[in-house]
Amino acid sequence: MKVSELGEFGLIELLAKMVTQGEDLRVSPWRQLLIGIGDDTAAFKGDSSTQLVATDCLIQDVHFSLDTASFRAVGWKAMAANLSDIAAMGGEARYALVCLALPKDTEVDSVSDLYSGMIELAQQHQVAIIGGDTSSAPVVMISITITGSAPTQGVLTRSAAKVGDQVAVTGFLGTAAAGLEMLKKKLKFDAKTKLAMADAFLYPQPRLIEGRLLLRCGVKAAIDISDGLTSDLRHILKASRVSARIEVERIPIHPAVRASFYNRALELALAGGEDYELLFTGSSQAIKKIRAEAACAITVIGEIVSGEAGEASLIDTGGRPYVPGKTGWEHFATG
Amino acid sequence: MKVSELGEFGLIELLAKMVTQGEDLRVSPWRQLLIGIGDDTAAFKGDSSTQLVATDCLIQDVHFSLDTASFRAVGWKAMAANLSDIAAMGGEARYALVCLALPKDTEVDSVSDLYSGMIELAQQHQVAIIGGDTSSAPVVMISITITGSAPTQGVLTRSAAKVGDQVAVTGFLGTAAAGLEMLKKKLKFDAKTKLAMADAFLYPQPRLIEGRLLLRCGVKAAIDISDGLTSDLRHILKASRVSARIEVERIPIHPAVRASFYNRALELALAGGEDYELLFTGSSQAIKKIRAEAACAITVIGEIVSGEAGEASLIDTGGRPYVPGKTGWEHFATG
Repeated sequence: MKVSELGEFGLIELLAKMVTQGEDLRVSPWRQLLIGIGDDTAAFKGDSSTQLVATDCLIQDVHFSLDTASFRAVGWKAMAANLSDIAAMGGEARYALVCLALPKDTEVDSVSDLYSGMIELAQQHQVAIIGGDTSSAPVVMISITITGSAPTQGVLTRSAAKVGDQVAVTGFLGTAAAGLEMLKKKLKFDAKTKLAMADAFLYPQPRLIEGRLLLRCGVKAAIDISDGLTSDLRHILKASRVSARIEVERIPIHPAVRASFYNRALELALAGGEDYELLFTGSSQAIKKIRAEAACAITVIGEIVSGEAGEASLIDTGGRPYVPGKTGWEHFATG
Repeated sequence: MKVSELGEFGLIELLAKMVTQGEDLRVSPWRQLLIGIGDDTAAFKGDSSTQLVATDCLIQDVHFSLDTASFRAVGWKAMAANLSDIAAMGGEARYALVCLALPKDTEVDSVSDLYSGMIELAQQHQVAIIGGDTSSAPVVMISITITGSAPTQGVLTRSAAKVGDQVAVTGFLGTAAAGLEMLKKKLKFDAKTKLAMADAFLYPQPRLIEGRLLLRCGVKAAIDISDGLTSDLRHILKASRVSARIEVERIPIHPAVRASFYNRALELALAGGEDYELLFTGSSQAIKKIRAEAACAITVIGEIVSGEAGEASLIDTGGRPYVPGKTGWEHFATG
């Protein structure tokens, strides 16, 4: 069945049913929900903590291609990108609103697949989808708004990096970019390698648990790596008016990526983007505490230094400057 | 200058500057703002009232055409559509997040115009734009999320209409549709008529003050008229499981629309949409109180009756059934 046959309100009814399916509406966050899908706005009880709200937009053939990602993966990824923003603040995600624009001839099954990917990840993090909007459009566009909360004493920000802080990251970098390249160019690898790289690109896991752990352990500065390490590091350095020294050989790269992409692996790790890992700075004591508690790898890759604000110097093991080829994804860039 | 020359981060910097320009950051809602544009999420202090959040998406050549609306009008209208959702709950709007997707060759001046329209209306209602996302896209797409609050004792909903309630509307209906037709077909009218109709279509005023007045006066059921009277009334009737009797001759139509569109004026009022007036139901006492306090026209157009849920009977002065030609705008509809 086509979306055009189901109609807008039929589609909304379908999606409204899907988001509550299998949910216990008596427990949090549904319990605090006053009005969900089906009215002019969603309404929920406020509380006394810091309220967070973020929105992110994914557009077909800009952020994703249906040649390399299924509708389910697109839904998952749209949700992951948004949850990752809450993770980067050290917050707890709570409610999501979804604007979904689609070509008229999109199959309803495809929309269901997209929503199922979104809902699966949302449920893993106890996030309720409580509203949104649908429309026709020339290409698929998904814009999600996430609300959340954090302790009143503060959140992780881009502007809190201090000279002397260590610079660290969660997980591995470049795996998503490797996955994209593999899917685009139909590269052949063994099944395990293929799965690891495809999953990193198609089904990234936002670091919500780790974000809260960072905050609890005394970290103040963080960002999620969506544009690429070099680019996102620059955001922290600019906002904090500091510089950084990054030892490129310390950047954690998945063994499968290193084995498959050889000397291009580092380039993918530096500029790749869409890993949705956390990049953060803190004292060595804080990072030691985090490493002891975290379920994922925590790797120190350099330190915050004084110097030209916004600029990082990348060095190799010999202390020589390293010059990367590409510096992260930027919209509207020509060429 | 093209957006592609300015770059994404340049564009964000420009927009971030624009949203705080001329604002007193020491007063509400900026005072409660912890983190605005430039971090992963915006953060603000919660309070003990009901929190509202809504999102709405406007897409070029679906919701608007740059042939009939300037970038400034598009920005205004996108904001109006969202604020209107908060108005329909009886809430107070507070913060906005804006996802903006644009073709790469869009002029930066056009983006500034779009934002200035959005900001002008936001400022009129003490709403702060505190975050968002930008991207390239094949067409212009704006998705806005609005948060707000309402008294803890309740909000206006679609599901609270009761048999015996009067059905009423704010302002005039069909003026926006008349304006669209005028602009599309380049119809010629006198300057005053032209302005009234163009303004209704391009610069609708969300009924936030009136929404709160309704709530204060004891109204329980309301919706904003975005799809058209017939269509939006059906939403209330379906959600409330009631029926309605609407006397079509009582529907308030602007004199300029009546004088210019003759017998088609009623059709525009019934099916036109985008008026962003409030449609509500309540006791005759409540409506009398509202009429005494409201700055705009408040017109009773019928009553809620028992009968087939979701169905309204439209009747003329002689009590005869009236059959409208078109029943409101629906996305994904074929033909």
